[in-house]
Amino acid sequence: MTAKVPRPFITQALELAAQALFLSSPNPRVGCVIAAPGGQVLGQGFTQQAGGPHAEVVALRDAAARGFDVRGATAYVTLEPCSHHGRTGPCCDALAQAGIARVVASIADPNPLVAGQGFARLQAAGIEVEVGPGAQQSRELNIGFFSRMVRGLPWVRMKAAASLDGVTALANGASQWITSPEARADGHAWRARACAVLTGTGTVLHDDPRLDVREVATPRQPRLVVVDSHLQTPAHARLLDVPQREVLIYTAAPTGAAGAAALQARGAAVVSLPDAQGQVDLPALLRDLAARGVNELHLEAGQRLNGAFIRGGLVDEVLLYLAPVLLGSGAQGIAQWGPLTGLAQGLPLRLLGAEQRGPDLRLLARVTGRDAF
Amino acid sequence: MTAKVPRPFITQALELAAQALFLSSPNPRVGCVIAAPGGQVLGQGFTQQAGGPHAEVVALRDAAARGFDVRGATAYVTLEPCSHHGRTGPCCDALAQAGIARVVASIADPNPLVAGQGFARLQAAGIEVEVGPGAQQSRELNIGFFSRMVRGLPWVRMKAAASLDGVTALANGASQWITSPEARADGHAWRARACAVLTGTGTVLHDDPRLDVREVATPRQPRLVVVDSHLQTPAHARLLDVPQREVLIYTAAPTGAAGAAALQARGAAVVSLPDAQGQVDLPALLRDLAARGVNELHLEAGQRLNGAFIRGGLVDEVLLYLAPVLLGSGAQGIAQWGPLTGLAQGLPLRLLGAEQRGPDLRLLARVTGRDAF
Repeated sequence: MTAKVPRPFITQALELAAQALFLSSPNPRVGCVIAAPGGQVLGQGFTQQAGGPHAEVVALRDAAARGFDVRGATAYVTLEPCSHHGRTGPCCDALAQAGIARVVASIADPNPLVAGQGFARLQAAGIEVEVGPGAQQSRELNIGFFSRMVRGLPWVRMKAAASLDGVTALANGASQWITSPEARADGHAWRARACAVLTGTGTVLHDDPRLDVREVATPRQPRLVVVDSHLQTPAHARLLDVPQREVLIYTAAPTGAAGAAALQARGAAVVSLPDAQGQVDLPALLRDLAARGVNELHLEAGQRLNGAFIRGGLVDEVLLYLAPVLLGSGAQGIAQWGPLTGLAQGLPLRLLGAEQRGPDLRLLARVTGRDAF
Repeated sequence: MTAKVPRPFITQALELAAQALFLSSPNPRVGCVIAAPGGQVLGQGFTQQAGGPHAEVVALRDAAARGFDVRGATAYVTLEPCSHHGRTGPCCDALAQAGIARVVASIADPNPLVAGQGFARLQAAGIEVEVGPGAQQSRELNIGFFSRMVRGLPWVRMKAAASLDGVTALANGASQWITSPEARADGHAWRARACAVLTGTGTVLHDDPRLDVREVATPRQPRLVVVDSHLQTPAHARLLDVPQREVLIYTAAPTGAAGAAALQARGAAVVSLPDAQGQVDLPALLRDLAARGVNELHLEAGQRLNGAFIRGGLVDEVLLYLAPVLLGSGAQGIAQWGPLTGLAQGLPLRLLGAEQRGPDLRLLARVTGRDAF
């Protein structure tokens, strides 16, 4: 028996923000709770799909719909309210017009060009501002948004499924299914929260996957990105069959190359970004994806492309499903790079979590130092 | 706030049994609680080192030392009391002579030649007997003893330390240290509970390890077993430096071979068990170790010997430390076997536990069906 302790309003706001996980991309996941001085919750909300209202406006509308007067109330919001006219009006103005007396915000907007302007605008309107509670959680929930705003790069999460001895496929290519249906469904939830899923030609040619979100309910499909240096993706590839999904094919070939027109006819955009070696320039690809609004990039590829991302220092996080089986030597691994000559050349990680998914283990680990931006 | 619920006596007895983990080998880990009809604990104990008193006798002596009369009391014991004269007198007789009225035992003695005789002897003495509470836990705590008694084989636990992508050593052999001091200390605790630690010539020649228990306190050192088909272990090997430890070197060479005398002079026993291929006969080795009283065998070897154990169907459990690092391709793995041509040829496991040890992850997984004896 434990007495029920009321959760802090900012915790409630963070929980609301998490409800925008599959929804708000490329906008950040933000939650808002409006509470009266006496502690009554008057309204709440979270950021809707791009073009829809932000969390603050949803919460104000919620309070109005419930007949509450929010004058003198406090708005708890997990990110600095916006001060600019984007697809919606500035939230700062909406809060001020509604008579909100105080704003408690978790963290400043990460965009260095706008950070603090929302707080300044609120204060100019006579609103008391407190910043800090829930800062770490809000940043983590929006690690991709922060990455794009601060680094100009998506947050790259490399996903792999392997046996306990690191085998992702046998020497003959057999890999379906090393992990369980529960692990695969969990993997779809991680796809769903990403702005884009990225794979390589090898996977397309070998597995012909759709790489869409099917195993969990989602209001939107993330974009699909293919790294296809020699433009080998066939026009009949199943990944082109998914309706309502944007497909970007990056190639080192000229955009007018043979095959490009057929892919474009299937709705794909073909982007030519060659590097000096005649491969797709991966750093340039990441910058381009960030410019297109990609926060979290879900890298779901084979050992060759995974190896190229690691060698390029481009991986931020590893999402690894380990099945309880040993599959022996002479097989395919998670990433083809090396052989290393010293342990210090490895990709150092910090384990963030280990949880069972069905019979399998799901590990989340972060590349050391990559979140220090 | 939770009210303190008294633990069942059999749970207390199981906790006592666990205190014999590093101690009682080759005898089983057994705990005993003697309680008065009113619920007062009169005495308790666990099995001491081989040749010392069993749990029941320790508990009876404890009650006597505390001035308690155990007539009419119940003895809760985690294994069927012994009925035979071994190095100590039969516990059944001691319980009966002390006037114990009732015995609650977790599980029957696994030795098919003696199972039930203890219970029969108690009942013949007029003692009420109940069997079953804590059976599963007691069997798990003594999985090696049950294995030896029922299968005539030790319980083989294969230990490995690897990166998240399954690398145990780089191509050039570098492997110190992939895992953390915390993981290595934990590994020593698993050595300490084993009756014997087994390794191969490759490890001896490459690493020259002591393979003793240093990082945790232990009242005894497990035996050390080397699989050394061509008798290559040098007489100056550090594993021969550990005092008070029995070393068994199994070879396919004749026991009179060159080098055997020098090893024997250093205190090692050299056992010749060749198979038809001129290697050590591993199934025969396991049977021989069981005959020598080995319950749990801690296999801590390189990829070649691990592969031979897996190919031979001789592994029961896998203890795997995973360090949060990726080490790439072209390196050494956990076990050299394969390449497999179908996923169903893998070694199927069931995950028993995943816990952090320092920055690393410790996994315990059991080969499917191996505990069904």
